[in-house]
Amino acid sequence: MSELEDISELARRRGFFFPSNQAYGGTAGFYTYGPEGAALKRNVEDVWRDIYVREEDHMEVSAPTIMPEAVFEASGHLEGFDDMIVECADCGAAHRADHLVEDATDIEDAESYGPEEIGELIATHGIDCPSCGASLAGDPVEEFNLMFGTNIGPGSSAPGYLRPETAQGIFVEFPRLKEYARNQLPFGVAQIGRAYRNEISPRRALVRVREFTQAELEHFIDPETDDPPIERVEDVELPLYSTTAQNGDGGVERHAVGDALDAGIIGSEWVAYYLARSMAFYERIGIDMDRFRYRQHLAGERAHYAADCWDAETELGGDWIEVTGFAYRSDYDLSKHGDYSGEDFTIFRQYDEPVTVERATVDPEMSYLGPEFGGAAADVADALERLAGRDRSAFDGDAVTVDVDGDEYTVPVERTGFEITEQTESGEHVTPHVVEPSFGVGRLVYSVLVHARREDTVDGEERTYLELPPTLAPTAVAVFPLMSRDGLDDRAEAIAEDLRRAGLEVSYDESGNIGRRYRRQDEVGTPYCVTVDYDTLEDETVTIRERDSTDQTRVAIEELPEAIRRLLAGETLADIE
Amino acid sequence: MSELEDISELARRRGFFFPSNQAYGGTAGFYTYGPEGAALKRNVEDVWRDIYVREEDHMEVSAPTIMPEAVFEASGHLEGFDDMIVECADCGAAHRADHLVEDATDIEDAESYGPEEIGELIATHGIDCPSCGASLAGDPVEEFNLMFGTNIGPGSSAPGYLRPETAQGIFVEFPRLKEYARNQLPFGVAQIGRAYRNEISPRRALVRVREFTQAELEHFIDPETDDPPIERVEDVELPLYSTTAQNGDGGVERHAVGDALDAGIIGSEWVAYYLARSMAFYERIGIDMDRFRYRQHLAGERAHYAADCWDAETELGGDWIEVTGFAYRSDYDLSKHGDYSGEDFTIFRQYDEPVTVERATVDPEMSYLGPEFGGAAADVADALERLAGRDRSAFDGDAVTVDVDGDEYTVPVERTGFEITEQTESGEHVTPHVVEPSFGVGRLVYSVLVHARREDTVDGEERTYLELPPTLAPTAVAVFPLMSRDGLDDRAEAIAEDLRRAGLEVSYDESGNIGRRYRRQDEVGTPYCVTVDYDTLEDETVTIRERDSTDQTRVAIEELPEAIRRLLAGETLADIE
Repeated sequence: MSELEDISELARRRGFFFPSNQAYGGTAGFYTYGPEGAALKRNVEDVWRDIYVREEDHMEVSAPTIMPEAVFEASGHLEGFDDMIVECADCGAAHRADHLVEDATDIEDAESYGPEEIGELIATHGIDCPSCGASLAGDPVEEFNLMFGTNIGPGSSAPGYLRPETAQGIFVEFPRLKEYARNQLPFGVAQIGRAYRNEISPRRALVRVREFTQAELEHFIDPETDDPPIERVEDVELPLYSTTAQNGDGGVERHAVGDALDAGIIGSEWVAYYLARSMAFYERIGIDMDRFRYRQHLAGERAHYAADCWDAETELGGDWIEVTGFAYRSDYDLSKHGDYSGEDFTIFRQYDEPVTVERATVDPEMSYLGPEFGGAAADVADALERLAGRDRSAFDGDAVTVDVDGDEYTVPVERTGFEITEQTESGEHVTPHVVEPSFGVGRLVYSVLVHARREDTVDGEERTYLELPPTLAPTAVAVFPLMSRDGLDDRAEAIAEDLRRAGLEVSYDESGNIGRRYRRQDEVGTPYCVTVDYDTLEDETVTIRERDSTDQTRVAIEELPEAIRRLLAGETLADIE
Repeated sequence: MSELEDISELARRRGFFFPSNQAYGGTAGFYTYGPEGAALKRNVEDVWRDIYVREEDHMEVSAPTIMPEAVFEASGHLEGFDDMIVECADCGAAHRADHLVEDATDIEDAESYGPEEIGELIATHGIDCPSCGASLAGDPVEEFNLMFGTNIGPGSSAPGYLRPETAQGIFVEFPRLKEYARNQLPFGVAQIGRAYRNEISPRRALVRVREFTQAELEHFIDPETDDPPIERVEDVELPLYSTTAQNGDGGVERHAVGDALDAGIIGSEWVAYYLARSMAFYERIGIDMDRFRYRQHLAGERAHYAADCWDAETELGGDWIEVTGFAYRSDYDLSKHGDYSGEDFTIFRQYDEPVTVERATVDPEMSYLGPEFGGAAADVADALERLAGRDRSAFDGDAVTVDVDGDEYTVPVERTGFEITEQTESGEHVTPHVVEPSFGVGRLVYSVLVHARREDTVDGEERTYLELPPTLAPTAVAVFPLMSRDGLDDRAEAIAEDLRRAGLEVSYDESGNIGRRYRRQDEVGTPYCVTVDYDTLEDETVTIRERDSTDQTRVAIEELPEAIRRLLAGETLADIE
């Protein structure tokens, strides 16, 4: 079995994750987290929260997953959140057209091609339907919107969509959220929650699914005055796979943050700051940093508004998978929502000192414009006001001409009330820019599992274990009685209860021989097992066994909770002996 | 303002919750949790998890929110998850018909009436459209399915629905989940997640919303052999509002669990167990137990398969609101999924000792049935087999008659291979019964806030504060410098950082006068504020101020983390002085 098949098998058997609704034949792209997986996922989310909310001192919110259509008109998802689909004329199966081309050719970025080009490539390369084998040549390639649609309330008058990213639930509420930040930039708003993409061809377990969990941070900054505390991270080394390396035949290069900025490899200090901060996150959750890189977006991948974009990628079964996107999104999101909603998506930036500015204003004589231009008079007045703001020199002559809906209107300057006045202003309205690190939680959980799986031989027997960081493991400590009799079981249950009361995640197991019980815990990554045996009844000590080394030591029961706490904090068996 | 208006105003202003998408005119039935609310909600969920997962030692899973249609065919939601709707012929507004009747009449359970009856009541009572005032008499009352529908994948060939309860994600995966329980009953599976109901008329803030969070536990038991540990809770006093009291003119009566079972007030020991266990939960999250009751379902409210159902209700603004449903659901859910999917939703119950049973079997001569009955032969053989299992006396005579699709077929008994044999069986397949406590997390958060709000006068000034349990508050401790100068701010920031490192939720605030900063924290329920003043620089002590009493005491900085920890654990300012 391949590395990924191994993990899928282990995940299903031990309760990390499995395909949903198998009793009804399964539903592609949907996975259920079993008890071990749900706990591991929660632990990954807690580490994320610890770094991006607590340490960085940002807010965390929780917004609905269903949002009304207007939101996605503004965000651009309704128009542009598409993948290319080709439907087999023979069997009716739908396929992601660009993926078929990538699988059959050397092309790696088929997504950036147009539907017509993809259709031609399918024909040229004689690509067949993966379901039935019929030729797909000539079958139309079309855009398919990936949002799940629904209707809010009775009837179909209020279409809604499941959010394709958690971010929109933050952007839309910016007018309210800025109040909680007391109208001061910079501030960040985080959210961990479900997002949905109606993938044409879900695949690769937790990698390309239709319902997933994102952890996103939207950091709102003033582009002119806010800088990240880059000095705190400038020595952090980053494994960078730059556009230059990708376009040439270079590979990953390690650069300190400061050097990468100086050399222009990373274009934005803000993006660099989050790339650096995130290294600690990936390390804490147990990503193998030898199978990890930051890949810069190629020009064709990047959204037009994004100044610099990098993906964090993990290597899984030979492929590189995006687990995080880091983007400098400029004012794109807030400007769009401001334009579409007509509400105030800006922050008032106070000047250090009030400034005096010259303003050109008009006050048109409506008693002249009315009789002269009839129904167009009000529009002419508006056009004069806009013109004064834009080009005051237009009022230098005797008359001024404005355009209203394609018709020209000429007005004597003396009738416009044109004037230049001095005004004192205390500040100005600024649309904040957004720096966004966006994490796929399921892909992170999947990467952690794949990178943690180990095989070795213990006492001549092969075993599989997960080398998860101790604080990330679903169970911190498992407690076993050597036999489930002679009071060993009662004693072990009491010890398990004590450890639970000490705030630890504890598992109690008395079934099967002790070796089998160790293997079970090894496979779910439990870092420590405690065994209660006949000596325990004599001398009040128990055995602690360490997962990775399988080394054992004995400690007094009364010292056990403290011993486990020290082990979880990074000490070794030798330290606590 | 009413109690509920007060809370909605506070919630919006301080960031607990607010109506979503206001920039686009709002979307009824959807709320966003702001920073304070998201933290409070997470804390409520953590207490729930602590009790129903950790202490009760159940599994917790996380399933998708979108599920395929087959699931809801089996569960009955597709057919029966309806509310009654009446659409105004004049303005087109849709209303929940039974609610209009309840609002306009003395009827309290209009939901249990049929659409025709409701239509007649609307006409008789002359109920008008709440939106435009036109008469609704004669407008048809119809059933409206409350599930949000969507399509999975391209096209409309795979309809899916947003789950109306988290429970289905557990029931459907029973065949897999039982493996994690090593095929042994009893075991429980919990889930905290989003659920969706396309309410016709969302109302009352977080009470009747279209997207909400449920915390559900499905406890799978063997109805014949599994009993709850009722002895652990038999002395717990419950405020019970029984059907007898509701049908007469009785009120809430307090009964110990044991007495309520003996008196037959509570019909199921399992339900009684969870009613008792849940008392600790409501108390820990800060529900005012004088505004709390358990209300038994009236016969008309109860699903046909449910043996006994109780709701936990909180009093909010004069109304009683369901916050939890407790139901003994029998084998209804698993049987339905077993029938519809054809998969095994049973558990094998091992007998203590193998038993020998007599089995009637048949082995029909197909060489006789074939020529005799042609295409129906196989069905006749199957019918004979079923008949032997059901009624062996049918084979007492010379011939036996079976019915296949309405046609009768008579077969000589000697051709059926009928035989009575002795078989040794080690156990039997049992469809587990389900005990379900189902909590509405948003309603709990709302109840906690309403019950916690206090007003008093401090130093002649009115103040509002939230008397939240200290461990439930979004912020455990706020740190203020008296002035943001003279090094007080640096010192205060360092202290805040130390407290954060000690694992506490800390807020730092240096803006505005100290009184205003106290009020801000009072309004979000922060139990303790620490102030750094000029004395601090001299003697290394700070002031701790307690939210409810506004009492203050001074402690040494080096003892501060431990002092806060003791206060959060229930000690008083006097204890730590």
